[in-house]
Amino acid sequence: MDASFDLSDDLILAHRLADAAGRAILPHFRTPDLFADNKEASGFDPVTVADRAAEDAMRALLAEARPDDGIRGEEYDCVAGRSGRHWVLDPIDGTRGFLSGTPTWGVLVAMNRGDAPVLGVIDQPYIGERFWGAEGQALCRGPHGERAIRTRAPRPLGEAILFTTFPEVGSERDRAGFEAVARGVRLVRYGMDCYAYALLAAGQIDLVIEAGLAAYDVQAPIAVIEAAGGIVTDWRGGPAHQGGQVLAAANSDIHAAALARLSSFAD
Amino acid sequence: MDASFDLSDDLILAHRLADAAGRAILPHFRTPDLFADNKEASGFDPVTVADRAAEDAMRALLAEARPDDGIRGEEYDCVAGRSGRHWVLDPIDGTRGFLSGTPTWGVLVAMNRGDAPVLGVIDQPYIGERFWGAEGQALCRGPHGERAIRTRAPRPLGEAILFTTFPEVGSERDRAGFEAVARGVRLVRYGMDCYAYALLAAGQIDLVIEAGLAAYDVQAPIAVIEAAGGIVTDWRGGPAHQGGQVLAAANSDIHAAALARLSSFAD
Repeated sequence: MDASFDLSDDLILAHRLADAAGRAILPHFRTPDLFADNKEASGFDPVTVADRAAEDAMRALLAEARPDDGIRGEEYDCVAGRSGRHWVLDPIDGTRGFLSGTPTWGVLVAMNRGDAPVLGVIDQPYIGERFWGAEGQALCRGPHGERAIRTRAPRPLGEAILFTTFPEVGSERDRAGFEAVARGVRLVRYGMDCYAYALLAAGQIDLVIEAGLAAYDVQAPIAVIEAAGGIVTDWRGGPAHQGGQVLAAANSDIHAAALARLSSFAD
Repeated sequence: MDASFDLSDDLILAHRLADAAGRAILPHFRTPDLFADNKEASGFDPVTVADRAAEDAMRALLAEARPDDGIRGEEYDCVAGRSGRHWVLDPIDGTRGFLSGTPTWGVLVAMNRGDAPVLGVIDQPYIGERFWGAEGQALCRGPHGERAIRTRAPRPLGEAILFTTFPEVGSERDRAGFEAVARGVRLVRYGMDCYAYALLAAGQIDLVIEAGLAAYDVQAPIAVIEAAGGIVTDWRGGPAHQGGQVLAAANSDIHAAALARLSSFAD
């Protein structure tokens, strides 16, 4: 492999990006009367000052450290790059959670070489907790130390814990697909934003199902979950790194069980 | 006031109780294959080893420090007491969140003198975050320091943020009541367990609506929210300290707006 693609350097940089984003965001978390744009005339998709400040901070670091790398972020235009490396940034995944004060939003940083991400970081700076993965190794560092993480071993669908952020999931069809799986599991929980992917990577839950995602919502979770032993696909079982309908699973058995119920609702 | 009812001593003891509970619980959080009883044949209401260990630890402290105080806990029989003070303990509020690894469960400690609680603590020991209140003063201590907290100022229902833990809320009628309010607000979020009450006390959100609660689920939140300037009642506007259908609101205006939609669904 070309030394210029050494993933350990990329991982160090990914941590620096997440650090910079967290520093930019935290002064704005849980402050009263946070400025919130309304990106969409219908619906509620606020963009905060914090969101932009964090992406600015990450782009400034990349411009200095990796002027030839591509960038795809939530807030600003893409940078095509010419190194073959692409950074995919979501400064605050879960802006509605952020505005509500829940510690479930996160900074998402991923790197890919044109398709699937090979490295990802999910960071929750209020708790001081970070989950990251690359090359088959995933770790978590939090208030109680650092440890390697692995996804859960297979169990029957009837014993599984399933997460999604909103009960409506996406379109009516998306919701019907979600509910086809939800009816078969032991416990369904809501409201965790990207933190649900971290819990899946950390071996706490079995399934996360979402719809209507963007690439920057899912690339870091894909990298962390795959490095921890899990599987992330779309609802047909194909690649999910462009977003859309996403099924994240702790292992191939529970992935197959969920996919059997979801696939007829795939776009 | 009788010096034996000095609330500052009670508050010091409440902190010690929450500390003891957190120490008992944390070694069991996010461990694989946590033992979980199933208290109810239908449904999913696990009791963990941690739950019992924490209530044991709190009861041991009370037996030593306050042998004459009453105790009402989730896991064991009531102690009637004869001092007029009653401690109301929920070692892990949000056991399903606990089993899923979410940092939304909490240790709840309240004290009352026979009816409404006068002092409460909501503690999230994984994050290291505590919210408490008594005598019109509420505070929060967390990863980023300690500060006084106040509930939000009035805003129209259409600008409000509403939380409940599960979309089904309780019975079909409970759900219908919840949805009557949910239709009128800006944002509805789920899945926060007792942490939602803490967010309300801290001025982050406007409303929490739940149903089917026990006294130990709600007495600490009532004390913290009221000390922070908010209001907690049942769905008729009466006392909520015995549990059941609960409406927690940041101020009297938003409380009235929500109650107008909820009251026809009151038990």
